Amino acid sequence: MERLEHRACFGGWQDVYRHRSEVLGCDMTVGVYFPPQAERGSCPVLYWLSGLTCNEQNFITKAGAQRYAAEHGIILVAPDTSPRGEGVANDDAYDLGQGAGFYVDATREPWAKHYRMYDYIVEELPAWVEADSAASDVRAISGHSMGGHGALVIALRNPGRYRSVSAFSPIVAPSQVPWGEKAFAAYLGDDREAWKQYDAVELVKGVREKLPLLVDQGDADEFLATQLKPELLRAACDAAGHPLELRMQPGYDHSYYFIASFIGDHIAHHAKALRA
Amino acid sequence: MERLEHRACFGGWQDVYRHRSEVLGCDMTVGVYFPPQAERGSCPVLYWLSGLTCNEQNFITKAGAQRYAAEHGIILVAPDTSPRGEGVANDDAYDLGQGAGFYVDATREPWAKHYRMYDYIVEELPAWVEADSAASDVRAISGHSMGGHGALVIALRNPGRYRSVSAFSPIVAPSQVPWGEKAFAAYLGDDREAWKQYDAVELVKGVREKLPLLVDQGDADEFLATQLKPELLRAACDAAGHPLELRMQPGYDHSYYFIASFIGDHIAHHAKALRA
Repeated sequence: MERLEHRACFGGWQDVYRHRSEVLGCDMTVGVYFPPQAERGSCPVLYWLSGLTCNEQNFITKAGAQRYAAEHGIILVAPDTSPRGEGVANDDAYDLGQGAGFYVDATREPWAKHYRMYDYIVEELPAWVEADSAASDVRAISGHSMGGHGALVIALRNPGRYRSVSAFSPIVAPSQVPWGEKAFAAYLGDDREAWKQYDAVELVKGVREKLPLLVDQGDADEFLATQLKPELLRAACDAAGHPLELRMQPGYDHSYYFIASFIGDHIAHHAKALRA
Repeated sequence: MERLEHRACFGGWQDVYRHRSEVLGCDMTVGVYFPPQAERGSCPVLYWLSGLTCNEQNFITKAGAQRYAAEHGIILVAPDTSPRGEGVANDDAYDLGQGAGFYVDATREPWAKHYRMYDYIVEELPAWVEADSAASDVRAISGHSMGGHGALVIALRNPGRYRSVSAFSPIVAPSQVPWGEKAFAAYLGDDREAWKQYDAVELVKGVREKLPLLVDQGDADEFLATQLKPELLRAACDAAGHPLELRMQPGYDHSYYFIASFIGDHIAHHAKALRA
């Protein structure tokens, strides 16, 4: 493990680490924000999953989340969005391959060897994080777009593992939209049954633990009608009797300005559950 | 004038414009944040001057200042740091030429034709901003590093023009440090007398209007001892009986994580003066 960055921020430290991932078969970079409270004892952890094309930098430099994490005493963990490196399969498109892991465990070549982001986020990353005595195993999860999809899927599939979940502009039904169809066909193959385990709208139908979902969505988001379709999550939650707070935010788009505007609400939402 | 970006942010709008600068003889890009209050009437304006290598994007994407501007009803204006373009003189070094205008009016070739950032910031930019009825002529100014130098120099030389001034990690005595010596020799020539009009430590000696200075400086800043030297400003202010609140912030470096951590204090400082 190597510490690449270590910068004072809101009384705590914004770090970036490189660590070896056995699951992914490559080195991974991860942003970790330690609030001031982490110097005096262990803190709960909010895992943040970023969207297409992002690495660990986008959230830590643009969301302004550290202020709220420092207020509430929460560690923020923001990993890269895919395996990376010369030996890792890739594609010229921005929505497949490196930077576009989609938080699945790929079963098809050439992806299956490295693209195991689901396993990495659920198991290996928290084990690595919690090896630091500053981090407790009290967890929350959130994310944006592809990462909002990842957060919802991972929380829905792992009852008891997260105290709370939220998402910004998530891809709620990847099986039904171009981004998801392309990625799932490549990573998982043509059998759409296999896609359901990574589709929040499908998973909500059969979920046991009803963790309240907080979702923010800008109504001026350029991907709203084609890729995001929050109404599908609304309908699935209504049908399943699953709680959902879906907030349509007027005028907001898909950018980090949107995330910055509401990340304080999300961290307060998580803080309430994490401290309960 | 062309609007390049228009994004909802904290209830207002983060815009980016391209406008023609006659002073600089090129097009300039400027970030402008309109807080929600700007929809109901005119708001005071905080001008932000960025540091070496920056353009209009750094501050608007990384400082998290919009939250505080929205709380206080202040417009934020963040221009690029130099003239730009193919016909504009440049240098391979990061600390001279494009991205390194140093907020002076150059008198030496090849710089004199375009490098008139002092004039642009003091006159042309506010005239352009205030042509919008949302912006009042009640002004404050701040900046970082080279831009902290610019903010101090411009406020000190223009009594009555700004209600308040602050700086992060400013180059307080450019005539005495390598960054300033290199830039001033190129832009202004070898006569060090001509440098004094752009040197805050020199200007504070003879200033008429004693505008309180708020300066934040990280004590882990990698440029502290060689380029920034806040102790020279401390000594000059003490000798001149000029008010200075110089806060040495333990552990902080030269990055935007430092700015993000304290920009709220600075905007509150400006809001108090702007609303007085």
